[in-house]
Amino acid sequence: MDGTTARPTARARSWWGWGWTDAHPGDAECVAMGALLPGTLARPLPVPRVRDLDVRGPAVEAPQSLAHLVSADPADRAAHAMGKAYRDVARALRGQPGRIPDLVARPADEQGVADLLEWAGDRRIAVVPYGGGSSVSGGVEYRGDAHRAVLSLDLTAMGRVLDVDTAGRAARIQAGALGPGLEDQLRPHGLTLRHFPQSFEFSTLGGWLATRAGGHYATGRTHIDDFVQSMRVVTPAGTSGSWRLPASGAGPSPDRLFLGSEGALGVITEAWMRLQERPRHKASAAVAFSDFTAALRAVRDLAQSDLAPANCRLLDPGEAALSGAAHDGCSVLVLGFESAYEPVAGRLARAVELARSHGGRHDGSTGAGRGRGEAPAGDAAVSAWRAAFLRMPYLRDGLVRMGAVAETFETAATWDRVPALIDEVRGEVGAAALKATGHPATVNCRLTHVYPDGAAPYFTVLAAGRPGGEVALWDDLKAVAGEVLHRHRATITHHHAVGRDHRPGYDRQRPEPFALALRAAKGALDPRGILNPGVLVD
Amino acid sequence: MDGTTARPTARARSWWGWGWTDAHPGDAECVAMGALLPGTLARPLPVPRVRDLDVRGPAVEAPQSLAHLVSADPADRAAHAMGKAYRDVARALRGQPGRIPDLVARPADEQGVADLLEWAGDRRIAVVPYGGGSSVSGGVEYRGDAHRAVLSLDLTAMGRVLDVDTAGRAARIQAGALGPGLEDQLRPHGLTLRHFPQSFEFSTLGGWLATRAGGHYATGRTHIDDFVQSMRVVTPAGTSGSWRLPASGAGPSPDRLFLGSEGALGVITEAWMRLQERPRHKASAAVAFSDFTAALRAVRDLAQSDLAPANCRLLDPGEAALSGAAHDGCSVLVLGFESAYEPVAGRLARAVELARSHGGRHDGSTGAGRGRGEAPAGDAAVSAWRAAFLRMPYLRDGLVRMGAVAETFETAATWDRVPALIDEVRGEVGAAALKATGHPATVNCRLTHVYPDGAAPYFTVLAAGRPGGEVALWDDLKAVAGEVLHRHRATITHHHAVGRDHRPGYDRQRPEPFALALRAAKGALDPRGILNPGVLVD
Repeated sequence: MDGTTARPTARARSWWGWGWTDAHPGDAECVAMGALLPGTLARPLPVPRVRDLDVRGPAVEAPQSLAHLVSADPADRAAHAMGKAYRDVARALRGQPGRIPDLVARPADEQGVADLLEWAGDRRIAVVPYGGGSSVSGGVEYRGDAHRAVLSLDLTAMGRVLDVDTAGRAARIQAGALGPGLEDQLRPHGLTLRHFPQSFEFSTLGGWLATRAGGHYATGRTHIDDFVQSMRVVTPAGTSGSWRLPASGAGPSPDRLFLGSEGALGVITEAWMRLQERPRHKASAAVAFSDFTAALRAVRDLAQSDLAPANCRLLDPGEAALSGAAHDGCSVLVLGFESAYEPVAGRLARAVELARSHGGRHDGSTGAGRGRGEAPAGDAAVSAWRAAFLRMPYLRDGLVRMGAVAETFETAATWDRVPALIDEVRGEVGAAALKATGHPATVNCRLTHVYPDGAAPYFTVLAAGRPGGEVALWDDLKAVAGEVLHRHRATITHHHAVGRDHRPGYDRQRPEPFALALRAAKGALDPRGILNPGVLVD
Repeated sequence: MDGTTARPTARARSWWGWGWTDAHPGDAECVAMGALLPGTLARPLPVPRVRDLDVRGPAVEAPQSLAHLVSADPADRAAHAMGKAYRDVARALRGQPGRIPDLVARPADEQGVADLLEWAGDRRIAVVPYGGGSSVSGGVEYRGDAHRAVLSLDLTAMGRVLDVDTAGRAARIQAGALGPGLEDQLRPHGLTLRHFPQSFEFSTLGGWLATRAGGHYATGRTHIDDFVQSMRVVTPAGTSGSWRLPASGAGPSPDRLFLGSEGALGVITEAWMRLQERPRHKASAAVAFSDFTAALRAVRDLAQSDLAPANCRLLDPGEAALSGAAHDGCSVLVLGFESAYEPVAGRLARAVELARSHGGRHDGSTGAGRGRGEAPAGDAAVSAWRAAFLRMPYLRDGLVRMGAVAETFETAATWDRVPALIDEVRGEVGAAALKATGHPATVNCRLTHVYPDGAAPYFTVLAAGRPGGEVALWDDLKAVAGEVLHRHRATITHHHAVGRDHRPGYDRQRPEPFALALRAAKGALDPRGILNPGVLVD
């Protein structure tokens, strides 16, 4: 995905589900999908309407000086009540969304953010920073009742690229820039951030930074963290601005404390980001493996080589079938190379050869793109995977309308843990779903990012629901998965963030002295505890 | 440098100067060096002796249970009083070292560290963690009198590689491992950390981690930070152990808080480190430039390419002359490539061609090594630079014995700042030295590490001293340099750490909200304020 797709104007965002309403599958497509999953409903649940919700009036009113930044519109508020996790969509479909914020604020600049925080601090109002709203871990939802009111702080009115340093390949970008708008503003300079998470259209730079998002690159510098030159963060204790530096050894990195802070320590307002020239050379290929374990070894060797593929995604047989990359029970390795400087066909050929040495089969067809940011023409499996990748969240919501449990989660672990980890997640989550529903479930896996020392397995779970009890069923299945992750000391999240949903796993994973330090830092920066309460620390 | 040099046994470490006593320049060599620098002494200052110092008895005694870990030997204590900065060596030569610690402790395991911290906390004893003692920023020296006594916590008895994961290319290594011993233990596994700072022989893994050391690689992953898989840190509030993970997005990185914490938050006891296969292919070359500004542009283009040289060090004319790389007023770019997988001659050729397109001149000779970790045979300029690099700290001490001010400092800045920054440091520090001493000073610069968005300039200052007032003179010159750095928003240190000497610059650079968070973290982890007092925070 390259941000070049022309976007029709005036498309409507869904308040309850993924993305654009006009991209949602219709009832007939929902029924067709449901038919493939035993135990789902015969008819889809109706699309939920805000007017059917009991949206009470806001508990507070903004002062005159801030009124122009604030909306109390019920539809606006409902659309900011939750992120887009399975449990969010399922709750909305059942007419039981999370707590609807009292107000939505859209500051236009850093001073507006500071003013809103000051007002909220004085009034004990919880402030939930909100970018594109694509959180899949309960990161933008208020839970509890310790605050007088809840303010959703929507940053998307701050979406400009403010400065571009062409020679130094960097840009100062406001935190509320959504992916496509950000790339649109960089394109005239011949530069790109090249951060393309699945949520690209519906997530912001600030959200990526606050959650340590993973993006385009499957190897090397996979997380947004590595592309940060400096950041500005508004906290109730003052505004933090780090210097633009290519590197520094002066004490612990200030930026690394705010990266991953998920709105609990401050509100990121802008960052100088490291950019790249747009790639002029691309090549891709798909390699099939009969033996998933052999494929894992091939991918490990690739990650430990100096080939540095931009894409190196291994789909297990179920995932390959689901995305249309293969239907013969094979695993598929999707490889992609790109460079702004010189042809990459040689690197692709070496990678394919390496995969072959582990039993991979490649029919000889490769895709090569040359031009300004076009998606490469790949062979059929690559194209199928790419199209499915972007359509997946919409289809997920269609399945949820059929009463299914349909969700993903991800982790990362060292290579010695990866094979058993994948087996046990598939086995134990599948068994738990079968026991709970009486129907076999689908539990697929792909590796989204790979490293010399390990990999990030990404799981898809599709199961029949329990009418009215889908969310509790999912929570149970997720708890089973969490136990497997903990047993293998695999991280509770590689790039989906902690939010509120991953707190139990995060609290077990985080070293206790670091928890002490983080709580102390939170107390110093947010002494009244208004910033995204419940995220990371209590 | 590759750690393969056989070390004679029973060589003696200098208590006051760099490295091995038998590698120190003799009096005649000191005189010869001094003759090149106007205004220095006619005869070298005598080598200082511990027995001439007034070393008082320790103010505390270790309890029976810890006595076996503790030394009160005056020579041992004197050798732990300071690091190896110019101002440390100069003070020792004048018989005025920093505060000599009351005791030196050498714990053999993590429990020993915890026991020592507990005892020290109960007794209000300052604990100064000490690895190889190569700090050049006052990082291992106690200043002040707020504590009852000072304990130097020497980690070098914990120097073992405890576990090796060959398939995952990682090893669990104790923090007190010195560079050569660490590589010696990894070599049988065909693996290497490839972290070769100039201090390699005399610095430890724990020191590298605590100071965010820069190492071998001039591009890409230059800092030790990126090679950390997990860490264990003993704090007065408990022991922190992060999980072995190839990557994670679960909240702010715990490791990144302790990386660069310089002993102020806890004592690093071990880490799982990411390793690499030993390179089998190497190639190097030197390119001369008549125009330093053109050379800067060439290096920027190289850093922004995908060539990824392991070595990419640009020496200005003075630095090239000092190291013997060139004597014709040219700047010299030292290039090196290496790979464990395939020949690198092609990448070297492309890099040389790129340098030529900016006016660089290359005589066609390149060095290529092939084998197990041998230093590559380079052409004459490369070899001269490499030899000078390792001998430099010894020669520095020889000059100091001649009464000279001889020191280095380093920074990093974005490319737009680099040319003026270098000019102004050279000009303003040179002018200040001339004014203070009446003699022209040498102020040279090289780029040690380069990035797509900036570079790390490294300065060498050689000036006549003011007998008895050398340290104050240096502090004045460093303050002048600090002002230039601050004016350009260049970091106070790229990889030499903050210690105590860089506190003024660090305090100005650090965002105030981060300072609040760091102080709060320090208060939570070290509530009695015993850990390396004065470093990073007060």
